[in-house]
Amino acid sequence: MISNLIDAKQAAEMLCQADNILIICHKNPDGDTLGSGAGLMHALKKLGKTCAVMCHDKIAPKYDFLGIEVFKKQFEPQFTVAVDVADAKLFGENTLPYSEIVDLCIDHHPSNSGYATVVCCDSEAPAAAQVMVSVVENMGVEIDNTIADCLYTGLMTDTGCFKYSATSAETHRVAAKLMEAGAQHNMISTRFFMSRSRKTVELEKYALNTMEFMYEDRCALIVLDNEILSQIGAQPSDIDGISAIPRSIEGVDIGITIRQIDENKFKISVRTSEEANACEIAQGLGGGGHMRAAGCEVMGSLECAKKAILREVENALCL
Amino acid sequence: MISNLIDAKQAAEMLCQADNILIICHKNPDGDTLGSGAGLMHALKKLGKTCAVMCHDKIAPKYDFLGIEVFKKQFEPQFTVAVDVADAKLFGENTLPYSEIVDLCIDHHPSNSGYATVVCCDSEAPAAAQVMVSVVENMGVEIDNTIADCLYTGLMTDTGCFKYSATSAETHRVAAKLMEAGAQHNMISTRFFMSRSRKTVELEKYALNTMEFMYEDRCALIVLDNEILSQIGAQPSDIDGISAIPRSIEGVDIGITIRQIDENKFKISVRTSEEANACEIAQGLGGGGHMRAAGCEVMGSLECAKKAILREVENALCL
Repeated sequence: MISNLIDAKQAAEMLCQADNILIICHKNPDGDTLGSGAGLMHALKKLGKTCAVMCHDKIAPKYDFLGIEVFKKQFEPQFTVAVDVADAKLFGENTLPYSEIVDLCIDHHPSNSGYATVVCCDSEAPAAAQVMVSVVENMGVEIDNTIADCLYTGLMTDTGCFKYSATSAETHRVAAKLMEAGAQHNMISTRFFMSRSRKTVELEKYALNTMEFMYEDRCALIVLDNEILSQIGAQPSDIDGISAIPRSIEGVDIGITIRQIDENKFKISVRTSEEANACEIAQGLGGGGHMRAAGCEVMGSLECAKKAILREVENALCL
Repeated sequence: MISNLIDAKQAAEMLCQADNILIICHKNPDGDTLGSGAGLMHALKKLGKTCAVMCHDKIAPKYDFLGIEVFKKQFEPQFTVAVDVADAKLFGENTLPYSEIVDLCIDHHPSNSGYATVVCCDSEAPAAAQVMVSVVENMGVEIDNTIADCLYTGLMTDTGCFKYSATSAETHRVAAKLMEAGAQHNMISTRFFMSRSRKTVELEKYALNTMEFMYEDRCALIVLDNEILSQIGAQPSDIDGISAIPRSIEGVDIGITIRQIDENKFKISVRTSEEANACEIAQGLGGGGHMRAAGCEVMGSLECAKKAILREVENALCL
């Protein structure tokens, strides 16, 4: 699919030859784009390179331990590398003009659009961090405890703590390697999987109490509109885990979470069992992602957004 | 602590020399006692041994894939091995008289009482299954896909899907080995971590809506009495994950779940952060377990049970 594909060794060679490197993450940043980006940043710094990380959004405090140096024009970028960014439209306008020409993309999304000059993408890896381990090793950098923390964060968060289907023997082997290199399993696991904010709990309560079931309970849907989000005072980081809830219920093949972004803008998360392809559903509305987890943005009223996504759900369920 | 400790090699030698082997699991069986027991059963059968598995309780259908042959007096046991059973009182009376003399115990609980003739216990292992991998390998049995499924189930369920603090690099390495031997990651992960019954969801809703916070929100408590359990029609297998909820909330150091068993009998689950020792709290009421997850049973009224456990919580929080 991607014509300009290179492997981890080639990506490492490019990075070793470059300097003044700008690492760009995707908007609404998660543990994988930030962890992989931070891991790469620390590795490049160990080689004496000048580099920094850029993201459309402000990075939540729970990621402070990654030690990210944010790009504030402290140098003139000569090489740009996108991490975990499947499509150019996922950068967000705050990364302009730097995201207009991307020299290298390191990714794991099968739906990668090939927008970068060259792409190092292993679509079987469950996280960009698994690809990044290979890139960093090929750069000849020893993975220290700081890099290990960053990459373990990416690996752990994007696999749902080694739960999702793309988790492989290789994933566990990489996890073992990172733990041996000093990754703080407990700190990271507690931070992302064993500690929900009171606001997240309030959102979960609301989600469980209002969840709709349809199509003989094969689809479950949650709507988080601005009213409830502001009533609870929820931040984007409080919402992270909510989209996994509807699909996690027995018998549900497609779980949909509609979250209001603006007056007339909604972000839709799609999660599926093996009975449906989340990426295809999201692509129907101009989005993308993985087989089991994907997303899209829809303009219009809540009613329109709901109608639009349910039409895609019906198609996917062959109704 | 345990005076009659042996290692995995010695345990394997004993099993290789024995025949007509009865494997006993603990009551209220979980994925680790059943997965480790089933894994051992299949390994022994590959050596041509006669063996079967015994448990106080009926085994839930979700464990059918383990292929357990239940002991129905089809042979006269000459050797008994307890798996994941920290204390003789965890057998349950339906295992009598066989559980009265236990030749070998394979376990991972630091609180193992040493009731068996010899004990093969690695208290750093996050699951009995991790110990069992070693025992099976030392028996000279190649781990096939059936054994791998059983042991991966134990490993995955007792680590909360590689989430809990006892997860180590060795745990990930063992997981990689089991996946390479054919363990069905997706099936097991979906069954235990990505699929909640509608009844579990109802219980979670109830739990979130009624949870009490105390001691400056450092303790959260859930009560599931017979009324709500029968109203929802919840089976023990629907309740499994509920006890993790209270501790999973930010700032909560001690999570307590009180579940009614009989008119005057309550099972109390204790989960703690690094700020408190769950095992010590449970031991205060005659129970036991691990540093972060433990349990006990209390006779009397709900009010008494609540008072008793909160006294232990106060001690643990030095109030």
